[in-house]
Amino acid sequence: MLPFSRVTVIGLGLIGSSILRAVRHHMPTVHLTAYDADPAVRARVTELGIADDVTDTVGASVIDSDLVMLCVPVGAIGAAAEAIAADLPADAIVSDVGGAKLSVLEAMRKALPDAVIVPGHPVAGTEHSGPDAGFATLFHGRWCILTPEEGAPEAAVERVRTFWERLGSNVEIMTARHHDLVLAVTSHVPHLIAYSIVGTASDLEDVTQGEVIKYSAGGFRDFTRIAASDPTMWRDVFLNNKEAVLEILQRLTEDVTALQRAIRWGDGDTLFNLFTKTRAIRRSIIEQGQDDARPDFGRTHE
Amino acid sequence: MLPFSRVTVIGLGLIGSSILRAVRHHMPTVHLTAYDADPAVRARVTELGIADDVTDTVGASVIDSDLVMLCVPVGAIGAAAEAIAADLPADAIVSDVGGAKLSVLEAMRKALPDAVIVPGHPVAGTEHSGPDAGFATLFHGRWCILTPEEGAPEAAVERVRTFWERLGSNVEIMTARHHDLVLAVTSHVPHLIAYSIVGTASDLEDVTQGEVIKYSAGGFRDFTRIAASDPTMWRDVFLNNKEAVLEILQRLTEDVTALQRAIRWGDGDTLFNLFTKTRAIRRSIIEQGQDDARPDFGRTHE
Repeated sequence: MLPFSRVTVIGLGLIGSSILRAVRHHMPTVHLTAYDADPAVRARVTELGIADDVTDTVGASVIDSDLVMLCVPVGAIGAAAEAIAADLPADAIVSDVGGAKLSVLEAMRKALPDAVIVPGHPVAGTEHSGPDAGFATLFHGRWCILTPEEGAPEAAVERVRTFWERLGSNVEIMTARHHDLVLAVTSHVPHLIAYSIVGTASDLEDVTQGEVIKYSAGGFRDFTRIAASDPTMWRDVFLNNKEAVLEILQRLTEDVTALQRAIRWGDGDTLFNLFTKTRAIRRSIIEQGQDDARPDFGRTHE
Repeated sequence: MLPFSRVTVIGLGLIGSSILRAVRHHMPTVHLTAYDADPAVRARVTELGIADDVTDTVGASVIDSDLVMLCVPVGAIGAAAEAIAADLPADAIVSDVGGAKLSVLEAMRKALPDAVIVPGHPVAGTEHSGPDAGFATLFHGRWCILTPEEGAPEAAVERVRTFWERLGSNVEIMTARHHDLVLAVTSHVPHLIAYSIVGTASDLEDVTQGEVIKYSAGGFRDFTRIAASDPTMWRDVFLNNKEAVLEILQRLTEDVTALQRAIRWGDGDTLFNLFTKTRAIRRSIIEQGQDDARPDFGRTHE
């Protein structure tokens, strides 16, 4: 059974446009309505033909909908929720794809005090942005985390779960607070460090940018991929998951300081033991299908 | 013209075995002799048939050679150089592939005071180790850095340059000191941070290892690839490039602290400006052929 028959996607970047494509592919009878605040993006999505309707106002996009997916940056979710409040059908479910959940849930709840809200976060993406970057298989084999409030209607949560499962995802349910801590580790702090190290490298006086680029195959280039992700989206994530990010960052800083000390004092055993332990985690990630086992992620070597 | 007609490779891991394969592929008339301290590795290389001779002693591997490539971890290069001293032909050139050059040059010079030494570092690799991990195209389009001493015989440097060019690499020459600083930025510190963050994640009390693995597609998995590299090799790199690594690490720590402060105080502009700047570096790396432009490095999405 279809979990929803009329789905609205608001915000048509990498994730929003991938949802349109994935729904079209996996549930072709679902009616898809799309809206984006940027007229150029709306025009592009019309051209791509990945939605049944692209509306000129946000209100018009939700009037018939039974699932409204807010796919805007985390900092814009409150405003998007306010913008649909007047036109939202009483029985529609509102969801989102934001990378920070505690603040998003609060913002949505404030704007839509009586709506059925089931916040979600598909842990998937690439470094590319915009409606052309999306694709139908982005969610295949990836996890989607739902963070319903305590006491949220179970039937609504199950429908959103089925929606993501139909798009090829595995679904996990946890509290918004726990989500924010887990993602601080597996996503937010790695991004912050990647952005930071790329920034550090470009500011050095004794090493030119040309050198950094030439010799990036030594490891640096992996960080630049992450540090090429959408700036607005990531700014909002950090501002909206402050507490967990700062906590994990503090832990990381302590650990880096310990390694720094090991290097300074020539303590090879500490280094060797850590470097051995970390290999095991990589193996598990590959065994569980969360990464490509080919060397260099299967990068082409001509 | 062939730069060398008899090449010896000592140390038959990812890089050493890739050199054997690449020479066989690009200069098939060159005679290849191989040696590894581990009898099991020697047996495997014999089985793979990627060298003309696999010798049982290190001395026997160099007697006829005109190029000896030391492909052992940086911390073992001094001992390897000592081990070949008695049998090294007077006109042979000794080179290596170590990721730290100042200490390696000193160690080789000490063991071989009269030899012609041209240290080198191919900036290429994958997260896999051992003789089975090597492949002939590993050096294609990658840079190889040579760090000859001041006053090194120019003809010898040019022959080693030609050798790497024949394997598909671009060659750059710089001082050992500058190499160590550049690589600290583009390789060593990224690896240290990757190892560290994977370690931090596995030590948390409130987030399980299962969760870290499940949600690794949020960015973390890129770090685990780097943190799966050979532990011995990396321990040695850090112990042998102490000064530059600690200097770059200090710069990075300052920059991370500034971001930490921006997050704490809600300074979105600082975050946004950095996140925008870092995108440009990624573009240059792709334009210069040092990475794959496909999203997610071309990881398969089924």
